[in-house]
Amino acid sequence: MSSAAPSSALLDRFAAIVGEKHALREAADLAPHLVENRGLYHGASPMLLKPGSVEEVSAILKLASETGTAIVPQTGNTGLVGGQTPREGSSDIILSLERMNRIRDVDPIGNTMVVDGGCILADVHKAAAEHGRMFPLTLGSEGSCRIAGNLSTNAGGTAVLAYGNMRQLCLGLEVVLPTGEIWNGLRRLKKDNTGYDLRDLFIGAEGTLGVITGAVLKLFPQPLGHQVAFAGIQSVDDALTLFKNASGLCGTALTGFELMPRIGVEFTARNIPGVRDPLETAHPWYVLIDVSTSDSAETAERMMTTLLEQGYEAGLIQDATIASSEAQQKALWHMRESMSDAQKPEGGSIKHDVSVPVAQIPKFMAEAEVAVMAALPGARICAFGHMGDGNIHYNISQPVGADKEEFISRWHDMNKIVHGLVLKHGGSISAEHGIGQLKRDELASIRSDIEMDLMRRIKTAFDPAGVMNPGKVLKV
Amino acid sequence: MSSAAPSSALLDRFAAIVGEKHALREAADLAPHLVENRGLYHGASPMLLKPGSVEEVSAILKLASETGTAIVPQTGNTGLVGGQTPREGSSDIILSLERMNRIRDVDPIGNTMVVDGGCILADVHKAAAEHGRMFPLTLGSEGSCRIAGNLSTNAGGTAVLAYGNMRQLCLGLEVVLPTGEIWNGLRRLKKDNTGYDLRDLFIGAEGTLGVITGAVLKLFPQPLGHQVAFAGIQSVDDALTLFKNASGLCGTALTGFELMPRIGVEFTARNIPGVRDPLETAHPWYVLIDVSTSDSAETAERMMTTLLEQGYEAGLIQDATIASSEAQQKALWHMRESMSDAQKPEGGSIKHDVSVPVAQIPKFMAEAEVAVMAALPGARICAFGHMGDGNIHYNISQPVGADKEEFISRWHDMNKIVHGLVLKHGGSISAEHGIGQLKRDELASIRSDIEMDLMRRIKTAFDPAGVMNPGKVLKV
Repeated sequence: MSSAAPSSALLDRFAAIVGEKHALREAADLAPHLVENRGLYHGASPMLLKPGSVEEVSAILKLASETGTAIVPQTGNTGLVGGQTPREGSSDIILSLERMNRIRDVDPIGNTMVVDGGCILADVHKAAAEHGRMFPLTLGSEGSCRIAGNLSTNAGGTAVLAYGNMRQLCLGLEVVLPTGEIWNGLRRLKKDNTGYDLRDLFIGAEGTLGVITGAVLKLFPQPLGHQVAFAGIQSVDDALTLFKNASGLCGTALTGFELMPRIGVEFTARNIPGVRDPLETAHPWYVLIDVSTSDSAETAERMMTTLLEQGYEAGLIQDATIASSEAQQKALWHMRESMSDAQKPEGGSIKHDVSVPVAQIPKFMAEAEVAVMAALPGARICAFGHMGDGNIHYNISQPVGADKEEFISRWHDMNKIVHGLVLKHGGSISAEHGIGQLKRDELASIRSDIEMDLMRRIKTAFDPAGVMNPGKVLKV
Repeated sequence: MSSAAPSSALLDRFAAIVGEKHALREAADLAPHLVENRGLYHGASPMLLKPGSVEEVSAILKLASETGTAIVPQTGNTGLVGGQTPREGSSDIILSLERMNRIRDVDPIGNTMVVDGGCILADVHKAAAEHGRMFPLTLGSEGSCRIAGNLSTNAGGTAVLAYGNMRQLCLGLEVVLPTGEIWNGLRRLKKDNTGYDLRDLFIGAEGTLGVITGAVLKLFPQPLGHQVAFAGIQSVDDALTLFKNASGLCGTALTGFELMPRIGVEFTARNIPGVRDPLETAHPWYVLIDVSTSDSAETAERMMTTLLEQGYEAGLIQDATIASSEAQQKALWHMRESMSDAQKPEGGSIKHDVSVPVAQIPKFMAEAEVAVMAALPGARICAFGHMGDGNIHYNISQPVGADKEEFISRWHDMNKIVHGLVLKHGGSISAEHGIGQLKRDELASIRSDIEMDLMRRIKTAFDPAGVMNPGKVLKV
């Protein structure tokens, strides 16, 4: 812990910036902000501040830098790597953006939207829809996660295949630097080659380089055609061939290609109310295929029909269903998006958010299964995810009847096995969730010294006092 | 000039790294590397080095940092802002990547290609085509420009609308840092959230943060359908409406939407051999529309026909022709791509590479015409470009019979007028060409102090000795 505990006089100075009403100090008020969703991290903090303006954020960070007080930015508290959680036993002050949740401007002609960093993702979707537009980032947590968090983790989700991560969905940023200075980079330009790319440096920096208070987001026309299919298949190899066919046939109209194992479908049918297996018989693997077209509904229909027909003919698909209504489409996606939650009632789950080059997925999956099952007999591997991006959530549920604590104590062993294979195939140990506290030390162990050094040099250049979300991403 | 002239003994040490054969010192050998295409900059240099490996680049930069010797990386020498030109009266040593031009690997399944930084863009196109794939970056200079230069300037070109700039077309980099250290970031992953985005920092840094020696490029399936049309229209307003319609109808199948004025078509028909006006009568403005589809040739045909029919009906299009062969498609694109060269025989030309939010283009164009014509009566405005990206090459040819030198002496006056309007509309003074020497001081005058300071902090953190392409982008 680099920073000393702030005195009560100093806490009063922080509270005065936002007003006592917006400075929480009571244990009960702070409690929900000290833990994250998975319960892996339990932090400590003397105070949570809710600034109402960019100027207040600036004043907070200026005082923090002057006094060496650590600040943890927090938005929807939905992160999965402890990046938003104050450090254990720390005196980190939490800076919440929840009051800064305005949609500043929607421009359906230029296809841009300017929002506060604290905007909830679902509200962004709603505002876009009200103007006949679409913002593609789609996440299970969209009802509570907020844009600054999505940006700080370069969030991915299910629409990355066609639209990219947050980095590709953002044109400009407003950032308060650790020193309190305000950078206005709220540009709305598709092309702008004027100096170093500061925007992409703040995006994905997990709040360690500054606080994102505003953003210009890209909007898209709402597609005219939309088709969702769910197919039972025999192997991950077949899924890869199908993906290549789909990608060739549909190009960027292929807006989703998700892989799921039989056990994942069983988990959701058993544990998530309202979910049922969409096919009559069981299949070892499944793919969810999503196609969206801008020119007409017929194009999407034709693409999907052709794709499935060719898949049957080639023996790649055993059975398939095409959703015949929007409600059915949502139901298929709901099954896929519930797959992580569906593991909870099955006991402990050791999770991995990895990516490998798409063509390596079958080999990686086969090797990982052998290694995991050898190390943990009876384990139930529920590996699913964004096949088209090479991004697999390689989750492992405990053997039936096993002790949960004992199983979870194997977390790092399992990481070692799975991440080892990921690295062997040139992959990433964090495809979309980020580094936070969870993978900080592992990052340092797998990256070259020069890469870690470059990151530290940037951190020091932007945050000389070391007050911005310390201990996350980098040890520093 | 921060660095002292290297002694002849020091030059010998540099030459020893690559071998005398690959170290040019003769004035005649150096001459073509001291000027750039437009003749705006004439630099000086005692030596040009042609390393043959990453290790040799590393040894050069290590020695440069130790001795405080300035190094200018140069690839195809096709840059338009003097970024690749040694400084006037300098002793900058030129580092050419022309010997490092291998295609290291093509993976048509994973849709990636790994190349040396010195690969010529046209060779990348060829290698992709040999594997049934496509690399979308398309530039007039593709026969001589090289990948490291394309990356260092975050090159754009005519396919940005659908595929993005170089930043969107690159998955990983290998970079030699100013200290000589080698960063291997040759990742092939679509999703990888592991720390700060170093890749996008080097891309677009114009060689001021390191030398890009290798890159992983994204490949795409070759489209099955391709249609190119050329339409005569009445106004820029109509072009914007047409663009919005095209964008809505075709989505990402809209792979090009270029705007051209009557005078540009006249210039090319008059000055470029083989080019003729594709339409029978003259029109004030023209658009070139390019549609590519992955599912079938019919989809592209249907999209283009619908688009033009609706355009006629709405009175947006006066006359149009659809290319009926690949040769005709190429001829239409050739006219557009020759538009800058076609200005040369017309005398002096003052150029701008600007962007504004797409919806602002008509207003910007109208205001700029009034202001330019008032300041320079008789000027022939040849403003054309990538309408769909908001990127206009706002070029001004001299009045007929005017004195070329006198006209060119108005360069900065014209910049002031055009860039002033660009900034008023929230635009960029360098949409795709970069900053280099040409716009360095102007950048500092239009950006906030904090933004310039952040860039300088990055520069210092990466290049403490200040030897990498000094005086470009930043004064430092």
